Amino acid sequence: MLQVRPFDIEIGQHKVMLNVVDARERGLNAGDRVRVRTKGSATTAILDITLEMVKAGEIGIFTEALKDLKNPTSVDVLPAPKPASLCYIKNIMDKKKLTEDQIRTIVQDIVDNNLSDIELSAYVTASYIHNMDSQEVEWLTRAMIDTGERIHFDTHPVMDKHSIGGVPGNKVSLLVVPIVAAAGLLIPKTSSRAITGAGGTADLMEILAPVEFSADEIKEMTEKVGGVIVWGGATNIAPADDKLIKAEYALSVDPYSQMLASIMAKKGAVGADAVVVDMPVGPGTKLATSEAGRTLAKDLIDLGGRLGIRVECAMTFGGSPVGRTIGPAVEVREALTVLENKGGPNSLKEKSLSLAGILLEMGGIAGRGDGYKAAEDILTSGKAHKKLMEIIEVQGGNPLVKSEEIVIGDNCEDILAPAGGYIVAFYNKRLVELARMAGAPADKKAGVIIHRKMGELVKKGEPLITICSSSDWQLESAVKDAKRQMPIVVEGMLLERYPRITEL
Amino acid sequence: MLQVRPFDIEIGQHKVMLNVVDARERGLNAGDRVRVRTKGSATTAILDITLEMVKAGEIGIFTEALKDLKNPTSVDVLPAPKPASLCYIKNIMDKKKLTEDQIRTIVQDIVDNNLSDIELSAYVTASYIHNMDSQEVEWLTRAMIDTGERIHFDTHPVMDKHSIGGVPGNKVSLLVVPIVAAAGLLIPKTSSRAITGAGGTADLMEILAPVEFSADEIKEMTEKVGGVIVWGGATNIAPADDKLIKAEYALSVDPYSQMLASIMAKKGAVGADAVVVDMPVGPGTKLATSEAGRTLAKDLIDLGGRLGIRVECAMTFGGSPVGRTIGPAVEVREALTVLENKGGPNSLKEKSLSLAGILLEMGGIAGRGDGYKAAEDILTSGKAHKKLMEIIEVQGGNPLVKSEEIVIGDNCEDILAPAGGYIVAFYNKRLVELARMAGAPADKKAGVIIHRKMGELVKKGEPLITICSSSDWQLESAVKDAKRQMPIVVEGMLLERYPRITEL
Repeated sequence: MLQVRPFDIEIGQHKVMLNVVDARERGLNAGDRVRVRTKGSATTAILDITLEMVKAGEIGIFTEALKDLKNPTSVDVLPAPKPASLCYIKNIMDKKKLTEDQIRTIVQDIVDNNLSDIELSAYVTASYIHNMDSQEVEWLTRAMIDTGERIHFDTHPVMDKHSIGGVPGNKVSLLVVPIVAAAGLLIPKTSSRAITGAGGTADLMEILAPVEFSADEIKEMTEKVGGVIVWGGATNIAPADDKLIKAEYALSVDPYSQMLASIMAKKGAVGADAVVVDMPVGPGTKLATSEAGRTLAKDLIDLGGRLGIRVECAMTFGGSPVGRTIGPAVEVREALTVLENKGGPNSLKEKSLSLAGILLEMGGIAGRGDGYKAAEDILTSGKAHKKLMEIIEVQGGNPLVKSEEIVIGDNCEDILAPAGGYIVAFYNKRLVELARMAGAPADKKAGVIIHRKMGELVKKGEPLITICSSSDWQLESAVKDAKRQMPIVVEGMLLERYPRITEL
Repeated sequence: MLQVRPFDIEIGQHKVMLNVVDARERGLNAGDRVRVRTKGSATTAILDITLEMVKAGEIGIFTEALKDLKNPTSVDVLPAPKPASLCYIKNIMDKKKLTEDQIRTIVQDIVDNNLSDIELSAYVTASYIHNMDSQEVEWLTRAMIDTGERIHFDTHPVMDKHSIGGVPGNKVSLLVVPIVAAAGLLIPKTSSRAITGAGGTADLMEILAPVEFSADEIKEMTEKVGGVIVWGGATNIAPADDKLIKAEYALSVDPYSQMLASIMAKKGAVGADAVVVDMPVGPGTKLATSEAGRTLAKDLIDLGGRLGIRVECAMTFGGSPVGRTIGPAVEVREALTVLENKGGPNSLKEKSLSLAGILLEMGGIAGRGDGYKAAEDILTSGKAHKKLMEIIEVQGGNPLVKSEEIVIGDNCEDILAPAGGYIVAFYNKRLVELARMAGAPADKKAGVIIHRKMGELVKKGEPLITICSSSDWQLESAVKDAKRQMPIVVEGMLLERYPRITEL
């Protein structure tokens, strides 16, 4: 029996720590699974080994494992088998095909936090290197759907939209969802928050209303007003994806098969019948070439077919931001301006109407080729605006909000054109960096307003962009950074100047 | 500034924990690197994120990171770049070739514990899937040598021996090292402890003398008596390998390129000029076929050539244990019996003389083809025994020890042949399992003595093996397990009996 030393720290996993002496005596190594038993309770945990942290005869038990044990003063520790998943992950490394059961076991272990970081990372790495075939991806998607909550609507069709991402300022969901819902279709849109971007749709919507709801609440609200815009991460819908992001983010990889499955699992779990996928193509996006876009489109449509979901993909221009704003508040204001029919940029209007139009056609509201016009009618008639206000109200926000009431950071500064001419280079990623330096997405009032886009003419001293922030020092650091390396380049601009070789 | 909450737990890495609110505000995600600063001190750590463990405005700092900070009551946290290694690990995933600098950066980060479990696992997984070319393996080996301590001998040649492993009872180093040293050659042998086996050479030697020494001590002792048998894990020789084992063991993989580099780095770091590699081939070993053995031999010889180390490989029979004992004490007793010229099994004698003979030829002590005989002369003359006693003495053990004085567990039980006939099947792995169930390698007195090997004749009721242990209950469980599934099968034995279908 070992004396328990409680380590009251949540580390996201069942973990215990033994002195090297006790571990050796039991033939145990770091990373092994062990069964920890008290009188009347037991749990399985991942073993860590220490020379000093716990003494021989002691066992350190972290919060998660401690919670499973009754009266944990002294415990018994026995070797336990490694999870079966590990063997199947090894199969992926060896490029062997997996069975449906094997894939399901891996996904269940991921959802249950049963895999160590080492094992999770091996899954992500092996999946990145060796793509699954379409049958395996179908099984993976079904497993991801089944290991979380699902929504079953009584009314059909249920529509949905997804963007592959990679283009800044992509606030189109704020327009597409109300247009589609205003047309009488259901659209329960779960969105993400920004991880490396300046604001995800959920970050934007949160300015207008709460975005954290359960699956049941999403169903109820969608049935009531036709649509919602909520944060998917707050639900238990296809939760495997949220666990995988940890390793994917740490490694900066997005395994292709896993990406397909993650997209479609979120759609399958909310009961979508038809989905439009926005695929921004261009340098700096996730799809560098239109050939890569076509491959992805083919695979998504095929996977949808296997799952009984109709998928249409829309390749969109990803070379410059959608609209002229990047950052939660400035993007919301821009989207509302369009919905209020008070103007707003064409790129935002056209992209939103195109995507909404496809959904109207898929949902049987408009004939083939008539969707764009139908969407435009709904937008210009004010019905889309009215619908967004209903959505805001049902989610608990203020349905009387106006575009001009959206508050933007007090501290704003223009970045001026250092020369006159046409815009010849435009760096999306730099603009996102500047918005983040200004505080976005946590500071919702921080962001970048773009005055000139690719190919446009600018005079010397006119503003190229305006950076805003709630904080004066964050604004200052963003402005300094923008001037050091301009995100927008004007024809004829002197890019660098080296008076002396020693400065190089 | 954040208030510090010290988490006084060593977790093997620089780690800090932020509340999700503070992380979001700073644009930080779990797994990011952060720079933590106090007045006058700073450190870099891996970030974990929690909803509850630390409150907003607080930061949890684990022991390792805490040690770097002066007066850590409140600290400043800034984003820090991910280690460059991560980018190079991604290159391995993408099957791109690495440069020498990139490989060196990865190895240095591994040695410095700069990689998270997720990153380390990605390296191991990607290395397992995509082999490096021979140039990259050379660079990897050199980096592993240079990131640890090295031994430079004034006298040459320096000999060394390595076994690929996978065959039980392989106590040959206890004979090879003293034979070679008795011939006047230097042989500073670093050995491993068992991870999944019943006893590594270091576990065995520890019965005779201490095995934990620094690189300087190894040099001094080797110069004094010609050889040592020490635990490599206690030194700082090629330490990257010891860090990698964590992920390799957890995933049960042994990436090929990494294995080559790890073997040769340990040899290169002790200054070896010539190395013999024992490669047990056969079912259940690491080399299933002699073709796999030849490939490995070719690669090791090539790598040796690149490093200026002469390598000879000896394919050995791995189908059954070397000698007739498995477990520290029983193996040591058997090896001493051979050294004392009091008998002992031929398989042990012949294998040891073959490997020692190759080293005598490589070291110029014997002509090509005369090594075996020269080794045999050293063994039968008693010089090898005398040399082992010198090695034991210099390492701090008792140089008067006799084979019969090696204490074996009190609790022993024979497993009897349930039928008469020839031995037709012999399961190495089962024998190792039984030795481990009896307590080996932590219980050094636990082990298995083998009375009949493949092809030998046995009468019904004669012992096949004897299992010994210091503990009665461990013996009991091993015996029960042995009877449930026999490790040695006699011709004509009834293997299984199913009286009723319900028992299947």
